[in-house]
Amino acid sequence: MDQIFHEIKIETKGQGFYDLTKQALSWLNKQKIKNGILNINILHTSASLLIQENADPDVLYDLKKFFDKLIPMDNKLYKHTTEGKDDMPAHIKSAITNNQMTLSVKNKKIILGTWQALYLFEHRLEKHTRSISLHLIGN
Amino acid sequence: MDQIFHEIKIETKGQGFYDLTKQALSWLNKQKIKNGILNINILHTSASLLIQENADPDVLYDLKKFFDKLIPMDNKLYKHTTEGKDDMPAHIKSAITNNQMTLSVKNKKIILGTWQALYLFEHRLEKHTRSISLHLIGN
Amino acid sequence: MDQIFHEIKIETKGQGFYDLTKQALSWLNKQKIKNGILNINILHTSASLLIQENADPDVLYDLKKFFDKLIPMDNKLYKHTTEGKDDMPAHIKSAITNNQMTLSVKNKKIILGTWQALYLFEHRLEKHTRSISLHLIGN
Repeated sequence: MDQIFHEIKIETKGQGFYDLTKQALSWLNKQKIKNGILNINILHTSASLLIQENADPDVLYDLKKFFDKLIPMDNKLYKHTTEGKDDMPAHIKSAITNNQMTLSVKNKKIILGTWQALYLFEHRLEKHTRSISLHLIGN
Repeated sequence: MDQIFHEIKIETKGQGFYDLTKQALSWLNKQKIKNGILNINILHTSASLLIQENADPDVLYDLKKFFDKLIPMDNKLYKHTTEGKDDMPAHIKSAITNNQMTLSVKNKKIILGTWQALYLFEHRLEKHTRSISLHLIGN
Repeated sequence: MDQIFHEIKIETKGQGFYDLTKQALSWLNKQKIKNGILNINILHTSASLLIQENADPDVLYDLKKFFDKLIPMDNKLYKHTTEGKDDMPAHIKSAITNNQMTLSVKNKKIILGTWQALYLFEHRLEKHTRSISLHLIGN
């Protein structure tokens, strides 16, 4: 058994979903480990990780809309307002989705369903550089 | 250290909770790995995984009711309506629960609290065959 | 590759956030495993685990307020009321946050962002003793 640590940077351009699947697979493809566990951590609390449908873009549209309605960008609702109207909602959205994801890797492929993709879910309105830790353990 | 990949199929009969604990333990019991990590991934985005109370069935009733009220099956709320009124709510319910779960295995037993069970949480109304990946890594 | 199982007890004094980061790091520091995966499971379904901001305490205040508003402590809303008005809301809060967390450990440090901390999120009003399983696998 061996392990490899890596970090990727994603430049987000505002709120929404950024598909990480290809980038993760491309990195896995270059590693000597073929089978194992890929532990992914996003090193922020105002963006998160999500496995969701990769087919109909309306699904992502509706997801974003649901989260925005449930957790409004309205400073009157929050005490933590110094970083902008989108920051506290971003922390809450992060809390009810995922900061980390542990995926199984078999023959350098992530075990995912046909309709599944791995997304970075950016909750902030402005562009950000997001750091994501990839940690592969296996043989 | 060794690792074993497996996939199970669960036939769901509509929305609700399906206890996977016994099935997972029964599979673990047949493996040569005694201690390690069991990584579980559901290969769908309209059903999810949840660890919840195994004692009072009212807890599961109230959970289901909460999710249905928060995320109504009402096509007027969503753009993604082609797969039925229950599909987009299923994606949202999946997003705020879990697609994957990493459990610790000690002496072929999953480390769980007395009142905890592992559930498949089916969000669709009709019956479905759900694929769940089990990946055990340990020795 | 080696693995170590451990269990810690946290005495909570009612609803709120309890920072586990130092305690986890202090335990990691005493282990011979330097690099690997730390799998953390809370053995209860009325308290959960969360990675959140460690800087402005208003973030935690707003988070708690959001969850209390979304999931009111009101027995009229639930069938499961025998364990108190805070119990069913605790199960729901647990369901939409996390029972388990898998973190990457490098040089005996958890890979976390600058502003991230690992919290026990207690959902019950009275004090409780919470058991948390730590499982380290690596070399």
